[in-house]
Amino acid sequence: MELNVYLAGQIHDDWRQELRETAEKQELPLRFFGPMENHSRSDNIGEEILGSQHDAVQKDDAASDFNNLRTQILMQKSDVVIALFGEKYKQWNTAMDAGAAAAMGKPLILIRPEDLHHPTKELANKANVVVETKEQALQALSYVFETQ
Amino acid sequence: MELNVYLAGQIHDDWRQELRETAEKQELPLRFFGPMENHSRSDNIGEEILGSQHDAVQKDDAASDFNNLRTQILMQKSDVVIALFGEKYKQWNTAMDAGAAAAMGKPLILIRPEDLHHPTKELANKANVVVETKEQALQALSYVFETQ
Amino acid sequence: MELNVYLAGQIHDDWRQELRETAEKQELPLRFFGPMENHSRSDNIGEEILGSQHDAVQKDDAASDFNNLRTQILMQKSDVVIALFGEKYKQWNTAMDAGAAAAMGKPLILIRPEDLHHPTKELANKANVVVETKEQALQALSYVFETQ
Amino acid sequence: MELNVYLAGQIHDDWRQELRETAEKQELPLRFFGPMENHSRSDNIGEEILGSQHDAVQKDDAASDFNNLRTQILMQKSDVVIALFGEKYKQWNTAMDAGAAAAMGKPLILIRPEDLHHPTKELANKANVVVETKEQALQALSYVFETQ
Amino acid sequence: MELNVYLAGQIHDDWRQELRETAEKQELPLRFFGPMENHSRSDNIGEEILGSQHDAVQKDDAASDFNNLRTQILMQKSDVVIALFGEKYKQWNTAMDAGAAAAMGKPLILIRPEDLHHPTKELANKANVVVETKEQALQALSYVFETQ
Amino acid sequence: MELNVYLAGQIHDDWRQELRETAEKQELPLRFFGPMENHSRSDNIGEEILGSQHDAVQKDDAASDFNNLRTQILMQKSDVVIALFGEKYKQWNTAMDAGAAAAMGKPLILIRPEDLHHPTKELANKANVVVETKEQALQALSYVFETQ
Amino acid sequence: MELNVYLAGQIHDDWRQELRETAEKQELPLRFFGPMENHSRSDNIGEEILGSQHDAVQKDDAASDFNNLRTQILMQKSDVVIALFGEKYKQWNTAMDAGAAAAMGKPLILIRPEDLHHPTKELANKANVVVETKEQALQALSYVFETQ
Amino acid sequence: MELNVYLAGQIHDDWRQELRETAEKQELPLRFFGPMENHSRSDNIGEEILGSQHDAVQKDDAASDFNNLRTQILMQKSDVVIALFGEKYKQWNTAMDAGAAAAMGKPLILIRPEDLHHPTKELANKANVVVETKEQALQALSYVFETQ
Repeated sequence: MELNVYLAGQIHDDWRQELRETAEKQELPLRFFGPMENHSRSDNIGEEILGSQHDAVQKDDAASDFNNLRTQILMQKSDVVIALFGEKYKQWNTAMDAGAAAAMGKPLILIRPEDLHHPTKELANKANVVVETKEQALQALSYVFETQ
Repeated sequence: MELNVYLAGQIHDDWRQELRETAEKQELPLRFFGPMENHSRSDNIGEEILGSQHDAVQKDDAASDFNNLRTQILMQKSDVVIALFGEKYKQWNTAMDAGAAAAMGKPLILIRPEDLHHPTKELANKANVVVETKEQALQALSYVFETQ
Repeated sequence: MELNVYLAGQIHDDWRQELRETAEKQELPLRFFGPMENHSRSDNIGEEILGSQHDAVQKDDAASDFNNLRTQILMQKSDVVIALFGEKYKQWNTAMDAGAAAAMGKPLILIRPEDLHHPTKELANKANVVVETKEQALQALSYVFETQ
Repeated sequence: MELNVYLAGQIHDDWRQELRETAEKQELPLRFFGPMENHSRSDNIGEEILGSQHDAVQKDDAASDFNNLRTQILMQKSDVVIALFGEKYKQWNTAMDAGAAAAMGKPLILIRPEDLHHPTKELANKANVVVETKEQALQALSYVFETQ
Repeated sequence: MELNVYLAGQIHDDWRQELRETAEKQELPLRFFGPMENHSRSDNIGEEILGSQHDAVQKDDAASDFNNLRTQILMQKSDVVIALFGEKYKQWNTAMDAGAAAAMGKPLILIRPEDLHHPTKELANKANVVVETKEQALQALSYVFETQ
Repeated sequence: MELNVYLAGQIHDDWRQELRETAEKQELPLRFFGPMENHSRSDNIGEEILGSQHDAVQKDDAASDFNNLRTQILMQKSDVVIALFGEKYKQWNTAMDAGAAAAMGKPLILIRPEDLHHPTKELANKANVVVETKEQALQALSYVFETQ
Repeated sequence: MELNVYLAGQIHDDWRQELRETAEKQELPLRFFGPMENHSRSDNIGEEILGSQHDAVQKDDAASDFNNLRTQILMQKSDVVIALFGEKYKQWNTAMDAGAAAAMGKPLILIRPEDLHHPTKELANKANVVVETKEQALQALSYVFETQ
Repeated sequence: MELNVYLAGQIHDDWRQELRETAEKQELPLRFFGPMENHSRSDNIGEEILGSQHDAVQKDDAASDFNNLRTQILMQKSDVVIALFGEKYKQWNTAMDAGAAAAMGKPLILIRPEDLHHPTKELANKANVVVETKEQALQALSYVFETQ
């Protein structure tokens, strides 16, 4: 058995790459999906495909079309969702994706620093599991495959 | 026909009360639901019912149980969801509720100041309608009932 | 028992009004929903609520937000959908609504002139019932209530 | 990961073949499904299997049975739907399939010439993405697989 | 609380009328739905609404459209389904409706004479309850309302 | 707004009656459903309706038909489920009903003495809310209606 | 692409074997499922696994448990259902399975001799396709894979 | 075809290992999933991943997060669920999982000693099949693959 894992969260640093490398080292049978990790490309994808837009609002409208198409396809293909929160950025997409995952019946792992316990408390309650590090999230998935 | 409307968003000011009063003046057949609007009670509801908890994390865990019970019951009863974003606060519950509403097939109206167009762009794309004011959100619902 | 009926179809003439009056004369326990029947208001609703848009495409984008919000709310409230086709207009919304109704498990009545049998053949196949007149559609609904 | 893509739209020219060839050149991991592309066979499939029918209406009834069986099986197998509109033909099946796809939660890409923005406005609103060319539709799907 | 009950079964005698009268005498809060009980009207409803058809097969096709429209609307409105089998008639609609009810998650009561235990064994296994008489079926529903 | 509440749990004492009386005193807009509370009647309902059975196993089979019919109808009608555990009895039906409620998306309140925290830990995790007394469960429901 | 096909119908002759052989000769990518085709084993499977039962009714109860377990597992695995009716036998399981398939959204092919058009008329209306022979049913499935 | 089978039940002895070995000897195409079978690890998994907790209740809360994540992922991957009851232990998780499986439409096999017929009667009624031994459960699954 192999599990498909959607990695929801900010796209400003390489946390997904780190997580994937750790999973690979541990030889976990996981296949990872997620949003476009190149931030400027994520912002520009609308104009890249559709050409120049009227203004910044329209540019964002166009980009979000392609980003949400991607998320919808990949989240529907996933067996479990990991959502990572941190101190920086608004992270509204992360919260939106976490809310959607729970409503779709997808098992949900929340990674957040303990400091954020108050603003994530309802998100934490919707998640199956709340951890503080990427390594713990992988431990949770590794546990699914272990029998001893 | 009467519509049940869930009002997702922050609970730090009285925007829901304003919206309800406007709707009443316009005699719109709407019944509004939402989270506990008394902020400190929302934070303390866990200890209010279960008694004192070990620490702040446990207190939050306890509170979120009751807040999410409330949200799940009321959102399932709703025909449409309005989610309001503003400049202040983290608003992760708002994003989580909006994501859940869309995944549940509930029609979704997003209210946000135009300044926030960039961080709300994927949320905007999931919403049926994006407006900037509470009055516009009510216009959208009023339009559902009008025939001329 | 009362049934909610969504009336999908073009908004260029008053076929819905005729149908409603006939139903009322026959005292059928039906409650009718449908799109905004004032055509120019349907086209302008985006600018009416959101203000002037960049161009005709954006104006249409804005209008369709409010029109689809209305359709989604009302079709979810309906027990049965009537879709009317005629010789004039593109009627793509009618076909889209009929396809959506069938996919949502809503019973579907198709009204179309026999001349249109070829281009509506797959739509006809998805419908529970295909008739040629509004009166026949109401006969079909009346039959649901009759026991003799 | 490989995606199954249903190609809804008219069957009077070879647009699907062009799209498939472009996808193959780009080595995109896509598997395409769609309606019978041989138009006269699509019209005659009822009589081909069931024998001669009473009249043109019955012939169409018979054909639509087999065409809709095909569409239902293949759309249920698909991860994403592309619907193409053009200037010619009624294209009611395209609109019906697009409406069904959205109601089934299938991600939807709409291809239409900009000239058609007005009559496709509600369809465009239901789609995840609206583009003007087949190449753009494939760019959208390619974007789903890219990480940089 | 009132329950809606769909009465699936043959339409050649007045078993539904007897059941309704018994329920009324017992003042059970039940609202009964079912197929058209006038057998010849059920067979002729297609031609009654659509006019004369080519042959007996087409006449049946036309009638079944209206009969299934009725069944789909009313079964979706029902909280529980009673399916009655007897020694006479093919009763394929009864079996079809029972199969559909179970697949839709509708609670199912099967009434059949004990002699029919062998051919109804898989139907019996799908039903919540198997009884031999209409009175027993009503006892089962009465039990739902009782607390002592 | 009124909420329907299913009360899952043992039927050996009158905890439901106490809970209903408390709710009534507090004028909470709740309508309560649950299993047959007369224990011996619950055990005998199969033979009461169907007559004497072969042996104790068959008697139980017959009774469970009617008990599960009742539970399925009433749980489908409910907006929220309360499941009560205590020190006595096997309470497998309570656990089964709680598992079913969560899988059906019904909000779930678990009442259990703290002493039982270990054997109920996975049940507790599935519940929205875990409390120790009936009064706390009603506080949780009261909170759903309060705005201050 | 390969399709899983559930073959509903009587188990008194070898029609499934004939159909499978024809499909194999035509090299159709179909995998067939169906009920136990050894009739006496189907009747005895309850006693074979559970041992001797009290009487014929109990024996049937026991057998139907295992037969319905099999049908539920295999129908959930199927992409399309073929239901065959003939002149002989009660065929209530066939009608039940056809009703269930339609309610589960499984595409449905009905095979029945034209003589049976009257008693199968509502079943025919629920099916996507109605044919008279096994060869025609396979033509319908072959058509799903053809592009010319 | 291969079936995924979730083995719900206590984790105090090696019944799953015995069942897996029997299935292997019989070369049944079954893939087994289940909870962590190392009982103390199942109890400690929360502290193993999250570190030391405040008290025994919190330790259990933490463990149940990971155990339910595992169960939800694996049960969603399963085609059929086997639930085993015995004389010892509370077995509330077994009952909870069985209730969830039935509510999710997963076919369910119940293994229980005949002595337990009374307390398992409603569980038995929800199951497709009730047997007394692991060997009988495997016979039931073997029967799904047999054609003679």
